[in-house]
Amino acid sequence: MRALGRHVLAEVYGCSFEILNDIKKVEEIMVKAALEAGAEIREVCFHKFSPQGVSGVVVISESHLAIHTWPELGYAAVDVFTCGERVNPWDACRYLTEKFKAADVHATEIERGVIEPPQAAAVNL
Amino acid sequence: MRALGRHVLAEVYGCSFEILNDIKKVEEIMVKAALEAGAEIREVCFHKFSPQGVSGVVVISESHLAIHTWPELGYAAVDVFTCGERVNPWDACRYLTEKFKAADVHATEIERGVIEPPQAAAVNL
Repeated sequence: MRALGRHVLAEVYGCSFEILNDIKKVEEIMVKAALEAGAEIREVCFHKFSPQGVSGVVVISESHLAIHTWPELGYAAVDVFTCGERVNPWDACRYLTEKFKAADVHATEIERGVIEPPQAAAVNL
Repeated sequence: MRALGRHVLAEVYGCSFEILNDIKKVEEIMVKAALEAGAEIREVCFHKFSPQGVSGVVVISESHLAIHTWPELGYAAVDVFTCGERVNPWDACRYLTEKFKAADVHATEIERGVIEPPQAAAVNL
């Protein structure tokens, strides 16, 4: 069996309110995190909520990065999902948690797309 | 402790090649899945890969839906992440797996943003 993708779900606590509430900064950090990991960016879309909070996604050739921020709680839910051998989701994760000045990060990697190999053909011996 | 969000990670197998490779259909299904669950759509961005495959995200007020398709494997990696009590991620999940004509779905729900309540103030008795 092989997995097509690696999906890191990061619970990012203790971040700066100002950064998490600034759509330009959040977008810049997420885009740079993708580039830091060597990903190829395809689409970028971010949204600012009122009175606070930012949601956004960077679609990459290798899958996506997503973020939702709760500045009032200093918390961000971050996903880094990558396919292929070339890009390591943890490189992006390390970059962005540093830039958000996170005090505490709980992150887990989940395999996505575990595909069974084709059954071996029956052979008459 | 309370969780801010519910994140369903769905491994969707045995889907129609034609649907998974059609960016318009994939986008339409994902947007309708969000609406089916009662979510409020904020941003929609999809990308078609060559020779095959679609990646896309629907950013909603309640978080996001994301998809990456491997039409040649009949497989899609789907995320439905919602916050708040009003929207149930499983409603979106059920809708889209039906529309993709999935033969098999493995889905898991993960809590996101588990925030500790503030410590009770010390009281002199």
